[in-house]
Amino acid sequence: MTRPANKNQSKNDAYEWPRLENGGLDLDKLINQYGLQDEIDLIKRGCLEVLPFEELVRKLVLGKVNSTPLRIKFGADPTAPDIHLGHAVVLRKLRQFQELGHKIVFIIGDFTAQIGDPSGRNKTRPPLSKEEVMENAKTYQEQAGKILDMNRVELVYNSDWLDKMSFSEVIKLASKYTVARMIERDDFHKRYTEETTISLHEFLYPLAQGYDSVYLKADLEIGGSDQKFNLLVGRDLQREHNQEPQVILTMPLLEGTDGQRKMSKSYHNFIGLNEKAGQMFGKLMSISDELMWRYYELLSQLSVEEIGQRKEDVESGKLHPKTAKVELGRELVATYHCRELAERAAAEFDRVFRDKALPDEVPSFGVSEKPITLVDSMVQHTTTVSSKSAARRLIKQGGVRVDNEVIKDINYQIEFTDNSPEHLVKVGKRSFYKVYVKVNET
Amino acid sequence: MTRPANKNQSKNDAYEWPRLENGGLDLDKLINQYGLQDEIDLIKRGCLEVLPFEELVRKLVLGKVNSTPLRIKFGADPTAPDIHLGHAVVLRKLRQFQELGHKIVFIIGDFTAQIGDPSGRNKTRPPLSKEEVMENAKTYQEQAGKILDMNRVELVYNSDWLDKMSFSEVIKLASKYTVARMIERDDFHKRYTEETTISLHEFLYPLAQGYDSVYLKADLEIGGSDQKFNLLVGRDLQREHNQEPQVILTMPLLEGTDGQRKMSKSYHNFIGLNEKAGQMFGKLMSISDELMWRYYELLSQLSVEEIGQRKEDVESGKLHPKTAKVELGRELVATYHCRELAERAAAEFDRVFRDKALPDEVPSFGVSEKPITLVDSMVQHTTTVSSKSAARRLIKQGGVRVDNEVIKDINYQIEFTDNSPEHLVKVGKRSFYKVYVKVNET
Repeated sequence: MTRPANKNQSKNDAYEWPRLENGGLDLDKLINQYGLQDEIDLIKRGCLEVLPFEELVRKLVLGKVNSTPLRIKFGADPTAPDIHLGHAVVLRKLRQFQELGHKIVFIIGDFTAQIGDPSGRNKTRPPLSKEEVMENAKTYQEQAGKILDMNRVELVYNSDWLDKMSFSEVIKLASKYTVARMIERDDFHKRYTEETTISLHEFLYPLAQGYDSVYLKADLEIGGSDQKFNLLVGRDLQREHNQEPQVILTMPLLEGTDGQRKMSKSYHNFIGLNEKAGQMFGKLMSISDELMWRYYELLSQLSVEEIGQRKEDVESGKLHPKTAKVELGRELVATYHCRELAERAAAEFDRVFRDKALPDEVPSFGVSEKPITLVDSMVQHTTTVSSKSAARRLIKQGGVRVDNEVIKDINYQIEFTDNSPEHLVKVGKRSFYKVYVKVNET
Repeated sequence: MTRPANKNQSKNDAYEWPRLENGGLDLDKLINQYGLQDEIDLIKRGCLEVLPFEELVRKLVLGKVNSTPLRIKFGADPTAPDIHLGHAVVLRKLRQFQELGHKIVFIIGDFTAQIGDPSGRNKTRPPLSKEEVMENAKTYQEQAGKILDMNRVELVYNSDWLDKMSFSEVIKLASKYTVARMIERDDFHKRYTEETTISLHEFLYPLAQGYDSVYLKADLEIGGSDQKFNLLVGRDLQREHNQEPQVILTMPLLEGTDGQRKMSKSYHNFIGLNEKAGQMFGKLMSISDELMWRYYELLSQLSVEEIGQRKEDVESGKLHPKTAKVELGRELVATYHCRELAERAAAEFDRVFRDKALPDEVPSFGVSEKPITLVDSMVQHTTTVSSKSAARRLIKQGGVRVDNEVIKDINYQIEFTDNSPEHLVKVGKRSFYKVYVKVNET
């Protein structure tokens, strides 16, 4: 077989690839010849889809032969200051690419964030000022820096090129995509057939994001599974601009602590990257055993083999599931805080819950006032505390904890902030409940 | 009744309008009170639709009371250098508004003309250079000047504001319109259901044109019936920008000389404003009697009463239809050339066709070579001339005319230009035929 290329050849040079009888690339042969199996295993870990896989192999081979790292595109819209473990799934994948020597092109999507939804229909996308966007971008980078080596990242703002596009350039870009293809998109198709309003500008956002791939000459783009359509638009637009289209890689949407819905601020089932160590640890301990393995797969730095071993040990009874969960909590708190705080959180949790593991189902109560006094909450949210005076008595006796801390102040108020919208209340030795603040239309 | 407003009040001041029991404006009362009947009759002459009529009356009343002329918008895309009588229909209507004292805002649509169709699918919209556009705009103005008083026109180029629009401004504009509404448009709906490709940029052109109405604060927009959707988009966008929406006025598409299809260069049934007087007159004489009344209505400066009288005279036998047609030809040639040339053309036509009126159906032949020798054409296109030598003989004898001119040169070549793509050949006293050049895919 002819060697695909040498360092002096451009990436796009044509040469003889090993082929199967059906005309497809002989991937096994290539993977074997270039020793790509481990790299591919790591890339595919936890992924939902890699499309097309053949092109990924081809790009990896060419990258190796030409000693050129792949350009891995990731775009984040800085519409909110905080990110949670759901976002971390994609960032972890980027980290793996970084460890494999590839270049992360990290796009702050400040262009669309500043515009928001001009039709005003989508309340979750209000227009943001330049200052808000930059502030959000800053905290986003800080948090992403807990996972990625931000020094090695190529950080770009897409307003740099999208702000400069004129109407006639937008028309030219739009001419490269069809209405039918846009409407095929799951979400649009559903809304179109249901006769729910789709504003015309909503067709322009995927084009803007797709054009980022053209401008940045991305080799591969990573996103959550809900981003698949946008990633494909990038692929199409690159092809229309005579570029080799990017491979797309989608990651699953992480389930929240309830194990039911995707992790989201509005579902109160999230673990923020900026949450306090104890709180983060506690929330991780509250997830189901089944969900634990999902978090291991998508969030842990352990190898697939190590996780497999651990799971086997739990199944054979060699390891208690609670121990496995503590290990996960330790690792993640160490990642987002530090080893010492992780140990402390684990010890504290152990001390508090020594007598009784947190029950699988902790009752949760949403409150609309913020804050609420601990006494009021106890009367409203438990069946065992029947009056305010009974509540005060229990507090004075040291029998009540909020987020693992004993509260002795009978006037204590449970406060909610963006970073701690939920609190765990323990009354006596066996009664637990959560209170969270109900979010109004945000 | 309170007077609607005085000169010191703004146009939008609220006051008491005379109303009918159903809540609508009492239009009869208003028209009567402000003496608007003649003006409205002239405006409605030949129109297909005036929408909404009530708003037109309202605007006319306010204009009268405030002594403010209405701003009448008309947009022309300078994609080709020549215009024909089909275009003249709308220009005539503008002229009437001018005579009524209103302001014509004449938009040269150089923005879209320069872009053309970037998808390359629509071959009739190739991108044009700035120079070509300006050259076309110049000849367009010269020709429009035969109908309109261009000195009193507000002439604008929409690249002046559309070129300056940024991507984010386009997104904001697009947010004001919905996908469903765009697809409702006849043409788009048909193509969408037939699964014919619609490129996304095609949705942006109506927005651009509609935005012109916002930018120019149009009170009324005029267009051919094929423009109705675009005019309505302008209305919608003005409303979204908190402007009083423009009234729209559509004119029918004039039938070409064949009386069948709309006048169009590609159907070879047009009469160009820049055609020679004799040619224009001859073509007008070739239209059917029925079509003649249509041309009278849409192109003549005669009043509705005068045309009615003439028609009556023809029907009662008092006036020969040919005479009425000669009168129409005279008037239109005088309009686009001058009175003297009109008389000359009429006399010459009369002299040539004294013996025989042009038959109703003149055979037409499309030729692909350009030019063709007269001799070859005679052999190919007549049944009476059987050989080239016979053809040469007839020519030498002075028995052959091309476009009414005797040709004695046996090597004469029939040439086709953009302005004269068709020629009338007369062989002997009774044989006529037309030759035209077949246009390839333009």
